[in-house]
Amino acid sequence: MASPITFTSRAVGIGRARLGALTTPHGEIQTPQFMPVGTQATVKALTPGDLRAAGVQVILANTYHLSLRPGHERIARLGGLHRFMSWHGPILTDSGGFQVFSLAHLGRVDDDGVTFASHLDGSSQRLTPERAVEIQEALGSDIAMAFDQLVDATLPMAEVAVAMERTHRWAERCLAAHTRADQALFGIVQGGVDAELRRQSVASIAGLPFDGLAIGGLSIGESKAQMAATLDVVAEALSGDPRVRYLMGVGSPPDFFTAVERGIDLFDCVLPTRVARTGQLWTSAGKLNLRNARFLDDPDPPDVECGCETCRNHSRAYLAHLFRAEELLAYRLSSLHNVTYTQDLMRRIRAALEDGSYGTLREAVMAHYGGTGTRTDKGTVTGR
Amino acid sequence: MASPITFTSRAVGIGRARLGALTTPHGEIQTPQFMPVGTQATVKALTPGDLRAAGVQVILANTYHLSLRPGHERIARLGGLHRFMSWHGPILTDSGGFQVFSLAHLGRVDDDGVTFASHLDGSSQRLTPERAVEIQEALGSDIAMAFDQLVDATLPMAEVAVAMERTHRWAERCLAAHTRADQALFGIVQGGVDAELRRQSVASIAGLPFDGLAIGGLSIGESKAQMAATLDVVAEALSGDPRVRYLMGVGSPPDFFTAVERGIDLFDCVLPTRVARTGQLWTSAGKLNLRNARFLDDPDPPDVECGCETCRNHSRAYLAHLFRAEELLAYRLSSLHNVTYTQDLMRRIRAALEDGSYGTLREAVMAHYGGTGTRTDKGTVTGR
Repeated sequence: MASPITFTSRAVGIGRARLGALTTPHGEIQTPQFMPVGTQATVKALTPGDLRAAGVQVILANTYHLSLRPGHERIARLGGLHRFMSWHGPILTDSGGFQVFSLAHLGRVDDDGVTFASHLDGSSQRLTPERAVEIQEALGSDIAMAFDQLVDATLPMAEVAVAMERTHRWAERCLAAHTRADQALFGIVQGGVDAELRRQSVASIAGLPFDGLAIGGLSIGESKAQMAATLDVVAEALSGDPRVRYLMGVGSPPDFFTAVERGIDLFDCVLPTRVARTGQLWTSAGKLNLRNARFLDDPDPPDVECGCETCRNHSRAYLAHLFRAEELLAYRLSSLHNVTYTQDLMRRIRAALEDGSYGTLREAVMAHYGGTGTRTDKGTVTGR
Repeated sequence: MASPITFTSRAVGIGRARLGALTTPHGEIQTPQFMPVGTQATVKALTPGDLRAAGVQVILANTYHLSLRPGHERIARLGGLHRFMSWHGPILTDSGGFQVFSLAHLGRVDDDGVTFASHLDGSSQRLTPERAVEIQEALGSDIAMAFDQLVDATLPMAEVAVAMERTHRWAERCLAAHTRADQALFGIVQGGVDAELRRQSVASIAGLPFDGLAIGGLSIGESKAQMAATLDVVAEALSGDPRVRYLMGVGSPPDFFTAVERGIDLFDCVLPTRVARTGQLWTSAGKLNLRNARFLDDPDPPDVECGCETCRNHSRAYLAHLFRAEELLAYRLSSLHNVTYTQDLMRRIRAALEDGSYGTLREAVMAHYGGTGTRTDKGTVTGR
């Protein structure tokens, strides 16, 4: 079966970084690229028009959430996820693995799948590799993800290995179950932060006919140095593999640089929109916390270098007021800005990879985001 | 002092209805016209761009809320309310009278003013006619309202009369205190639902050099028939007065017809946006409650006759999902639609007054909004 996507990329002489283009049934994606998360078929507070205005090329939606509410069969009856949420660009759906292990009340993992209790009503639910594929086919995303078993990377190596090997067997079952010719399927490399396990996982997953490869199990509590070292191992093991590479659940400015230099093409994370709703705006001058009283009298836009609707029309003082008054508009305007900032940053990274100014851009961003991109302090935010 | 506004109107041969144009320092308003309420310097969930797209010509903001948070002096320092909220069309500010009597913990009314406890932090606050004018001058609205004493219209006539007479004395003090040449000041007729008191109030208020006249004390629990009868009394007493007439706190489709026929030019109400946030959409086919399970599978737009962004892009099924998932986008998309519906209805009323099709329009709308426009059942929603 011919792949419904094509990916071309070229090295640019900066570490393992590459520039690429990924074509999907719903349009082309320039890489490196960030995917905002539309958990429940909406990037919170934003419309599809807002996403287009921010330069978004592809979004992620959650299999776990949508299968529970409003139900994937319902979305299929209504014409699929693109039509349902009125986003006509590319969509990637995760497999539900992350949510089952982080959000649901976990019941029991066996070699066949996972039985868990819904976080909505406690009802008993079951996900298997075949079921995760079936749900994603019903949603009709451009890119589906294999169903994997995620574990805390700091567990004993033997436990990480058991989950990894199960993930490898489930990967083959996902491929066997997958039937939609207009939907790509990506495999997920696991193995925690152990170099040998990661090499084993790459050998297994990259040996299968997936349309693209993802790196899972990071950004869930390991140190920045561990993440960078693991990406180095995976990049080395994947060298020569032409497929697109997606680092799951990562989305802070320093992490983008760390990962792009290690050959990552795609990212997703709830971070830009989640922190926006708490009043944290990402700007060309670093992070602003709009709940800080000093912004109540600040007439400047959130980011003087940003051209989003929020920064064109509104002051820090106005946003600070909206947050204090708990007005709905606060969450919308801040989310729009942070998504725009993130998209602009990825665009600037691509341009800098092209014109040789990557080192200058990296230094300028890192100066405001307090790190080298390979900090050894523990991250406090878990991925998706 | 020349008035900063001009109002021209003409009768159209349908009851006392008239078509008019009100020019203000920030633009012209076609009448009859509805003003969405931006309580805390934002029409909840919507941007100024959304309001323009919906056809909004003028908005109302709340003196009471803004004086407490973020503070009118702060707004003045930031360049006034128009710049603060980035709405560059006309703004009318109420005087705070309604909120003091409905929202604040009322302390004490005396002939000089009102002492009350802030609903935010319980702090002791004082509003007088002079203070209400001072706050509105700091905000810099196009139209300020006199400070009035609102009472339940169903109280004994003697009590209503006392509040009315106090309102008359306060009206003179507001006029004496008002200094901004670029801001109009409207007086407010009170007197409950008693015809004789209303006539006395018109005689007092219309005898003063206000730039426009408002009718207060309605839509706060009286019956629809009482509201219509009171409007008849006021319209009769005002016949020949050329000034613009504003009915405060009224904003349902049937009430628009009742009031337009009785010579009302301006309306405001939180109703369209407040009910939107509960899932109630106003459409050309009547009210839809999107929390109803039957909409979860309905692929139609909320209103097939509406051209708003919500109806162009999204289905009832999608909105029903967003409401159940408590997604922020639900409140935004529904508010945008209801504001658009209300503006479209006022535009259709103006067009129908112009071309003689008013009776047909009235009948078509009333068929879906369950009333004649003068229903005698008690309204359940209080105005602002």
